[in-house]
Amino acid sequence: MSEHIVSSYDAELENLRRSISEMGGIAEKMMTDASHALVRRDSNLAQAVIAADKRLDALQRDIEERAILLIAKRQPLAIDLRETVSAIRVSNDLERIGDLAKNVAKRVVAIAGEIQPQKVVIGVQHMSDLVQEQLKDVLDAFASRDVKAAHDVWERDSAIDALYNSLFRELLTYMMEDPRNISFCTHLLFCAKNIERIGDHTTNVAETIHYLVTGQNLLEERPKDDASNYATVGLPASA
Amino acid sequence: MSEHIVSSYDAELENLRRSISEMGGIAEKMMTDASHALVRRDSNLAQAVIAADKRLDALQRDIEERAILLIAKRQPLAIDLRETVSAIRVSNDLERIGDLAKNVAKRVVAIAGEIQPQKVVIGVQHMSDLVQEQLKDVLDAFASRDVKAAHDVWERDSAIDALYNSLFRELLTYMMEDPRNISFCTHLLFCAKNIERIGDHTTNVAETIHYLVTGQNLLEERPKDDASNYATVGLPASA
Repeated sequence: MSEHIVSSYDAELENLRRSISEMGGIAEKMMTDASHALVRRDSNLAQAVIAADKRLDALQRDIEERAILLIAKRQPLAIDLRETVSAIRVSNDLERIGDLAKNVAKRVVAIAGEIQPQKVVIGVQHMSDLVQEQLKDVLDAFASRDVKAAHDVWERDSAIDALYNSLFRELLTYMMEDPRNISFCTHLLFCAKNIERIGDHTTNVAETIHYLVTGQNLLEERPKDDASNYATVGLPASA
Repeated sequence: MSEHIVSSYDAELENLRRSISEMGGIAEKMMTDASHALVRRDSNLAQAVIAADKRLDALQRDIEERAILLIAKRQPLAIDLRETVSAIRVSNDLERIGDLAKNVAKRVVAIAGEIQPQKVVIGVQHMSDLVQEQLKDVLDAFASRDVKAAHDVWERDSAIDALYNSLFRELLTYMMEDPRNISFCTHLLFCAKNIERIGDHTTNVAETIHYLVTGQNLLEERPKDDASNYATVGLPASA
């Protein structure tokens, strides 16, 4: 391969990395803003989150196209091939994270006029804080190709699932105690589910980092604690 | 390109198509079975759906790997490149459809022991029937490269979204009428949401067919009617 081709290939890879980094920044901001909008009941901030999603979608399409063309034109092997494949995978996860943050923002707009028991919102906020940390850590791990930090994120996901499960039960209990809470708590349940799924996508990114650095797919069973799919809540004693 | 390479390339493409078709068959069956399990309250059938998801995940990994290697080794252009890119995209959507059907199945197991107002289950079943039809039609359209049939599926998605929205309101009303319905109806709400999202993935496949056949991405705004994100339900007069 001539030096000219090599350097142009490196430049294209570098461009891909830059676009991923831009996507990561947008996804992080969308998630933080959606959470703030929910806690502060800020419909304007929620609208800004909804608007930001367009750029993320465009970047994802663009990265996918450029990465595929790069593979087709340059026939990269080993680590270079994994770089481009990882760019496609990570951009997919970031695009999905944006969708989920946008969905939370839409629900903030929906419940703007409702009675809101602040206590349950705090629970969702706590979960959201943990997931934001996961997202930040996994994006740092991706930028620095740090497989150990990626495993760390991967292992912490089960704590988020456990938190979601207890939140699920708590929200159901609120609904049973007072039917006026039902509409609000249902939207909050979906918000919590979306945030939990953002956590799942950070785990996907962690798996991609493992693949990128080691060349192997993580075959270990994911430390998934999705007991809420099985959870039901009986009527509280007062009902 | 020598004839030998051409035919081996065609054989690899044909293998990809066969794997996609196998994935389609599994995803369709998982979705149908999950819906039957929900309506008939059949936990055994639900467990079978949960078990089937492993094969779908393995096929998706395999297709992605083979498609990327094909691009890297053969440097396909134009329609051949689109064939391989489409294989990756469609396998991703089918894998997600499997995940969503599995999640419905898990909820069937969860609510096995609960009081179940059969009337609301019928609403979910009706929606599920429509989405199963969409899935079948889009898989047929993919197999026959029928862009018109794909557009048809794409346009019918808004009817499913509208149905989901009315179901969402109906389920909230049930919860408000009787707190004993809350746990069951919440799981049913998530089932309905999962089925609606399966509909979204059939729309993605329709968009991929458009890209595969025409070489263009569908830029038109998707006929999305996601008003339920904004929907709230007031207390019924009786509460």
